Amino acid sequence: MRTLYVIGIGAGDPDQVTMQAVKALREVDVYFVIGKGVEKQELVAVRTAILAEHADRPYRIVEIPDPPRDRDPADYRGTVLDWHERRSLLLEEAFAAHEGVGAILVWGDPALYDSTLRMVERVLARGALDFDYTVIPGVTSVHALAARHRTVLHRIGEPVHITTGRRLREEGLGAGSTVVMLDADCAFTTVPGDTFIWWGAYLGMPDEALIAGRVGAVAGDIVRRRTQLRERKGWIMDIYLLRPAE
Amino acid sequence: MRTLYVIGIGAGDPDQVTMQAVKALREVDVYFVIGKGVEKQELVAVRTAILAEHADRPYRIVEIPDPPRDRDPADYRGTVLDWHERRSLLLEEAFAAHEGVGAILVWGDPALYDSTLRMVERVLARGALDFDYTVIPGVTSVHALAARHRTVLHRIGEPVHITTGRRLREEGLGAGSTVVMLDADCAFTTVPGDTFIWWGAYLGMPDEALIAGRVGAVAGDIVRRRTQLRERKGWIMDIYLLRPAE
Ligand SMILES: C[S@@+](CC[C@H](N)C(=O)[O-])C[C@H]1O[C@@H](n2cnc3c(N)ncnc32)[C@H](O)[C@@H]1O
Ligand SMILES: C[S@@+](CC[C@H](N)C(=O)[O-])C[C@H]1O[C@@H](n2cnc3c(N)ncnc32)[C@H](O)[C@@H]1O
Repeated sequence: MRTLYVIGIGAGDPDQVTMQAVKALREVDVYFVIGKGVEKQELVAVRTAILAEHADRPYRIVEIPDPPRDRDPADYRGTVLDWHERRSLLLEEAFAAHEGVGAILVWGDPALYDSTLRMVERVLARGALDFDYTVIPGVTSVHALAARHRTVLHRIGEPVHITTGRRLREEGLGAGSTVVMLDADCAFTTVPGDTFIWWGAYLGMPDEALIAGRVGAVAGDIVRRRTQLRERKGWIMDIYLLRPAE
Repeated sequence: MRTLYVIGIGAGDPDQVTMQAVKALREVDVYFVIGKGVEKQELVAVRTAILAEHADRPYRIVEIPDPPRDRDPADYRGTVLDWHERRSLLLEEAFAAHEGVGAILVWGDPALYDSTLRMVERVLARGALDFDYTVIPGVTSVHALAARHRTVLHRIGEPVHITTGRRLREEGLGAGSTVVMLDADCAFTTVPGDTFIWWGAYLGMPDEALIAGRVGAVAGDIVRRRTQLRERKGWIMDIYLLRPAE
């Protein structure tokens, strides 16, 4: 492989792909796929739609098996780092085995809660392979959420904090507005009831769901809706914006 | 006007426009332009490139004069609110005077440090006009910065804080990583010297400049480079990511 593109493809709607991404896709010979479980299936669905509409030359898809991973480890960071190392070795093998222009498609934007760039850096750091490497930014689920609710992320001149469900539980709300991602268990139920929440699930996808209001008034609805949707589909992807009462 | 699109067009590179934006552009009869000074000129340049490549029907452009504004007021929030009110009245007049599908193009994403959505909400809240209204998310300068430096915004599982130069001076760095926008006077010079900085100016544009390193080592370079570029072009647009040493 002589060139690698890491391409953000948007957070669910295939039309969120950028022209820059489309132009890169038209050069790609081989796609490396390293997703996992449900996220991978969704990525495959969006990727298939995007490639069907925009790719205009033959390409190969190389699936890279994912090493097993402890999902709730005592040493979170250490376990993730070890898992990244094992993934990046598989990635290196796959890169070495293919010629031409390679690409990895990433959900949303590659800079936000995604490990692809860290893995590619590991491959480069080992020094066995050398290739050009370009990152193409994408629309994130943060901005998909704000757009669907037609809201700005923050009050005038105030900051935005982007964090995880785990940290919201541990640290609570900061100053300004907070966006919460990767929340497996409704950490919004732990914030003051007069906090405003804008919640969205499966943004840009056919099952999209949106709820907004004071946490005290809508938290129960969101929990119920989330449980229903998750049971129906077998998985859920959701994100929300929180803002303390003024 | 019966429909309004507020469309994020990316942060400088015309190819950062999404397919969703392109599909909307193809329905638009009239573009409302409410930028100011230098930002407006840049928006015009990017918009012209985008429309030249993607629009496939005739359209009109309506320029909305910007009411004057105190740029360094004692009461920042109050002054901005008053200015938004005056802008939104002009917007309402322009909406009322035109039929068909309208659009406002916004630099980056409409949810991040942009007042278009607040102004449209004011027009709707006054209740004199009624129209459908859709927001199309875009790639932000935050993600353009990360992509050009090929870096993730945060360490594994850590948060990202997005703030202004003014607040960085007042509040200093938080936990995790901090992205600073709207910084007129190099507030990064006030953080500890071992902080890592990824800086970018005119991202996605022909004059793009990138510098990365420890603040202690590169702050002088950035200040010099910034001054040079600003003198040469008459204006500058820059953004940076800061991360405390581990
Ligand atoms: C591993 S992170 C990847 C984020 C991605 N890189 C981005 O830019 O949006 C996955 C998290 O993103 C959020 N997310 C991504 N896509 C989403 C969507 N379409 N609807 C709701 N949440 C989404 C959820 O919080 C999910 O837990
Ligand atoms: C009024 S805010 C608008 C932000 C925009 N809505 C976005 O999503 O990026 C303008 C600030 O964005 C940042 N910015 C926007 N475009 C940029 C670019 N191409 N290069 C560097 N900074 C940029 C700068 O910090 C600038 O002060």
